[in-house]
Amino acid sequence: MSLLPPQITKAIEEFSKLPGIGPKSAERLTFHLLRSSKASPENLGKALTDLKIELKYCKSCQMVTLQEECSICADNARDHLTILVVENPLDVIAFERSGFKGVYHVLHGVLSPIDGMGPEQLRLKELMDRCENGAVQEIIVATNPDVEGEATASFIRERLKKKVPKITRLAHGLPMGADIEFADQVTLKQSIDGRRSL
Amino acid sequence: MSLLPPQITKAIEEFSKLPGIGPKSAERLTFHLLRSSKASPENLGKALTDLKIELKYCKSCQMVTLQEECSICADNARDHLTILVVENPLDVIAFERSGFKGVYHVLHGVLSPIDGMGPEQLRLKELMDRCENGAVQEIIVATNPDVEGEATASFIRERLKKKVPKITRLAHGLPMGADIEFADQVTLKQSIDGRRSL
Repeated sequence: MSLLPPQITKAIEEFSKLPGIGPKSAERLTFHLLRSSKASPENLGKALTDLKIELKYCKSCQMVTLQEECSICADNARDHLTILVVENPLDVIAFERSGFKGVYHVLHGVLSPIDGMGPEQLRLKELMDRCENGAVQEIIVATNPDVEGEATASFIRERLKKKVPKITRLAHGLPMGADIEFADQVTLKQSIDGRRSL
Repeated sequence: MSLLPPQITKAIEEFSKLPGIGPKSAERLTFHLLRSSKASPENLGKALTDLKIELKYCKSCQMVTLQEECSICADNARDHLTILVVENPLDVIAFERSGFKGVYHVLHGVLSPIDGMGPEQLRLKELMDRCENGAVQEIIVATNPDVEGEATASFIRERLKKKVPKITRLAHGLPMGADIEFADQVTLKQSIDGRRSL
């Protein structure tokens, strides 16, 4: 690769560090940026350099924001006694579309020892602190239904069960529009276990 | 998306302009950079901002370089009368590994009207100029064996056939290690048409 100028190999190397981008994709992206009229390395470069400037995390829910407190936590019309715990900020946006009226807590990850994510790497302490005064009525754990998400949910239940009267988990079952024929067995079992009266 | 701070939506937007990266991947990459200990937005941002600084194109072959002339064109031990025409700088690196001893010409793209790539967008004029004095013995057209690559090869042949004694195209056929059973019909036909005596 010594035929390529160092700034090109450097850009390829940095792209390769991103998830899902291997050395070949990194090369393609770098040369695309050199040549494209639509995307430019300067614009993407500036956007990334600016990414963390002035970026704050809400003092209450840990959502990314520009203020000390995010617009959701600052909204008095919302139910501040029900906290929906999510893995990352994009989950907040997804739940906002669903019309949820409580508040959130963003963990910024899930427990995953293999990726070096222990309880200290997550915003778990901040969640404990919010539940300390005993006012919180319900914690809804909305981590993803996978191994890491389930482990994180159990961890949160163990830590908070003495402080919060109600700790719940999102319902598992068939997604809207699903075809039962193609659903996996675990989902089908969960849809029976969690059946509701019509 | 107004819940997200503007620098985050800006980074997502710039990532989305890259080929093969949709809005969802762009979100994932942006939040990965915010959280990851290995990749950082500052490092990638700086690498991309620096990408075009001091970057030059070889005055002869148009390869990316830091000097006026790239190390291949400056090497007198190479055969400067045989020019291998390639689409992009990475192809040069691939052919260098194969042991080719002539010189190169990088087009920086192929003819593709749908992407706004006409003859003026490619480094074709520079190729014509190199063949002007009649010294060049052979042009090997090494564009990819696809529609755009074939069109570009035909275009080059038409423009240079009066100036260069020999214009050739890379051999088409079965790649090393291929399984004939799974080869496509066009490749099989080309492997018969181009058969060589044993």
